[in-house]
Amino acid sequence: MTQMSEARAGRITPEMEIVARQEKMDIELLRTRMAKGEIIIPKNRNHDKVRPTGVGTGLRTKTNANIGTSEGRSSLEEELIKARTAVDAGIDAIMDLSTGGDLMESLQAIIDEVDVVIGTVPIYPTAVMTIREKGALVHMDPEHLFSIIEQQAKMGVDFFTVHCGVTLNTIERLKQQGRLMDIVSRGGSFLTTWMLANKKENPLFEQYDRLLDICREYDVTLSLGDGLRPGALADATDRAQIQELITLGELTQRAWDRDVQVMIEGPGHVPLNEIHTNMQIQKKLCMNAPFYVLGPLVTDVAPGYDHITSAIGGAIAGAAGADFLCYVIPGEHLRLPGLDEVHQGVIAARIAAHAADIAKGVPGAIEWDHAMSKARKELDWETQLNLAIDPVNARRIRKEAPPQEDDVCTMCGEYCAVKIVQEALGNNK
Amino acid sequence: MTQMSEARAGRITPEMEIVARQEKMDIELLRTRMAKGEIIIPKNRNHDKVRPTGVGTGLRTKTNANIGTSEGRSSLEEELIKARTAVDAGIDAIMDLSTGGDLMESLQAIIDEVDVVIGTVPIYPTAVMTIREKGALVHMDPEHLFSIIEQQAKMGVDFFTVHCGVTLNTIERLKQQGRLMDIVSRGGSFLTTWMLANKKENPLFEQYDRLLDICREYDVTLSLGDGLRPGALADATDRAQIQELITLGELTQRAWDRDVQVMIEGPGHVPLNEIHTNMQIQKKLCMNAPFYVLGPLVTDVAPGYDHITSAIGGAIAGAAGADFLCYVIPGEHLRLPGLDEVHQGVIAARIAAHAADIAKGVPGAIEWDHAMSKARKELDWETQLNLAIDPVNARRIRKEAPPQEDDVCTMCGEYCAVKIVQEALGNNK
Repeated sequence: MTQMSEARAGRITPEMEIVARQEKMDIELLRTRMAKGEIIIPKNRNHDKVRPTGVGTGLRTKTNANIGTSEGRSSLEEELIKARTAVDAGIDAIMDLSTGGDLMESLQAIIDEVDVVIGTVPIYPTAVMTIREKGALVHMDPEHLFSIIEQQAKMGVDFFTVHCGVTLNTIERLKQQGRLMDIVSRGGSFLTTWMLANKKENPLFEQYDRLLDICREYDVTLSLGDGLRPGALADATDRAQIQELITLGELTQRAWDRDVQVMIEGPGHVPLNEIHTNMQIQKKLCMNAPFYVLGPLVTDVAPGYDHITSAIGGAIAGAAGADFLCYVIPGEHLRLPGLDEVHQGVIAARIAAHAADIAKGVPGAIEWDHAMSKARKELDWETQLNLAIDPVNARRIRKEAPPQEDDVCTMCGEYCAVKIVQEALGNNK
Repeated sequence: MTQMSEARAGRITPEMEIVARQEKMDIELLRTRMAKGEIIIPKNRNHDKVRPTGVGTGLRTKTNANIGTSEGRSSLEEELIKARTAVDAGIDAIMDLSTGGDLMESLQAIIDEVDVVIGTVPIYPTAVMTIREKGALVHMDPEHLFSIIEQQAKMGVDFFTVHCGVTLNTIERLKQQGRLMDIVSRGGSFLTTWMLANKKENPLFEQYDRLLDICREYDVTLSLGDGLRPGALADATDRAQIQELITLGELTQRAWDRDVQVMIEGPGHVPLNEIHTNMQIQKKLCMNAPFYVLGPLVTDVAPGYDHITSAIGGAIAGAAGADFLCYVIPGEHLRLPGLDEVHQGVIAARIAAHAADIAKGVPGAIEWDHAMSKARKELDWETQLNLAIDPVNARRIRKEAPPQEDDVCTMCGEYCAVKIVQEALGNNK
């Protein structure tokens, strides 16, 4: 039984109760939306300690942080601190993208470290181990991939990113139209390389039912990855991307037929004026399955500031229906993140998600802003600092330039508009 | 003669030629739009060294940085470094909001320091000097205000922010509806205080023709300030704000009747889903006069990250028609900016403006992104770093975590999707 099968059978699980309460959503509405696939609760049946978290229509927009060891560049210990940093900064999910060291050990350590939703990309360890053992990716054995999937499901992974839509057909569409950046998804690139070299179909597509069997057994949510996501504004909303989305829509239906929970992954690099279209076409082609976006980044030219370029896109996407935002770190196109970049990335994603939630009218969203503005009006600095999305940083900034008068800040000092008007209007209202 | 009167007389000024060339706009189209008031070139006839910069329909979205001394908190020397920092980071205009030290001296120093468009808020020095000399703002003499305006016009200020729309009528609308934050505009608060205490109309409204005389003589652009701009999401798009905008529309027409160039200032704090409406209502009520927005900030809860909250709002506003974005520093609601915050604020505003320009189809905008993505595809790091919106920062980030192989970055290392796919697709295309 999965959360979806329970919802369809009319049964309320403890996880649904927690999510409904957290989100101030009527439990029957939640259950109905879960039965239709519009809401998921990604929680592996072997992952007891995870906080149940809902993703989808009418719920708070969630955020994910990518972490993971890499060959020679980062230690497991560092990655665990990153995981903790992300959770402390308010992240809802963590994806382990490790490619260095003992990959199963690092995944286990991350699962043990935090209590948020955990996602992986099973093709990563498969590809890395293949290259280590056989010297080249083209020697990858699909059986090995499925054994990794099974192993990770047993370990308690809550969702798998699987690029099932990277098929010989979608690759042909890419070749026909041509692209500036071709494929920028790592998983997509691994599969494409293997498929073209071996002249074979994507095993995750060909053996999709086998994947569904595993997901059904452990209630692992499928995150149908966008291996053809645009990696440049020039490639956004092209035929390869939309072809993949059509395939993902069909695969969504097949998963739902087996009561497997699904979300869809989305772009990527997209011009601001194409974001709304991207959200709508996903929701239509994939029957309102939750949408998980990486960005979108609204410009290619700001390496070092991609937490901002993606916060712009993420906020717009969220307001237009995206349900789950993957953080993007400032130096996304430059290097693996350090600790501070993880923190920056999480806060930027949460700002985007919250701005979207206000626009979507998510219960409780704008009330936070009202409480902040009330404290601001009352020149109640302690409450303002406590309510800040990053209280530690807000406190640090204020402390670095302490005002001469306690009730204002150094921006305006004694010429504080709020203070002046309070006196003027207060006496005249 | 003003740029507007010249445009209306069918004459092309050297400034129009420069702007048309920079912006790749047909000179006759530019002149026509200037004649209609849809495009301005804010350039005081006494300000020879300023780079001519156009603002309005079809042009690149421009950015402004606020700097200025404050009572006891910052020195003129520091502010000059800030001005230089902002210009080096690519700002198009600087507003001097000084309230500390010798205010005319600091304005002159800033004018001398940089070659970008200079704006001021004449009510600031008037209020500060009044408080210094007479002990309270309520003793402000409108004659003093107009003498400051005249003095600054002679000094070469290119645009004045004047809160002419803060009238007894708009204040009454504010009182009738009630607001969470009342007035957060400093100029608006000075005027409101003076008006309520003295039971008199706003002198900038009452003696508007006198203001127009000065602007016409020196070709100073009026930036009709939004004294009633919302300072909280709760107050956005309310009756006070729209009432002021109606008044500004009428004042725009009166300025145009005298060939005085005008732009309109806008919010402020606005929920993401109300930004488009705000842009459209401004353009309608003010007959497509250029729109200069402060933000908008899409949430109140992120002090310390308001360069991000405003980059989200600014990008959306720009795409929906805003022409000029005022930067917002990270610690906007916490303190006066330090040097690094000025830099951060400028870059965030430029990212927002550029994302908007891509959406608006401004000539040359997306070509920058295409060049970056081409370099990315070719793993040409030197070109990528040079094309970055902040090359120094991009170079620093990459240098801090140098990859083992020159052609990739540490994010993916040897598993670089771009590299892998190039080999796979390159051989099979």
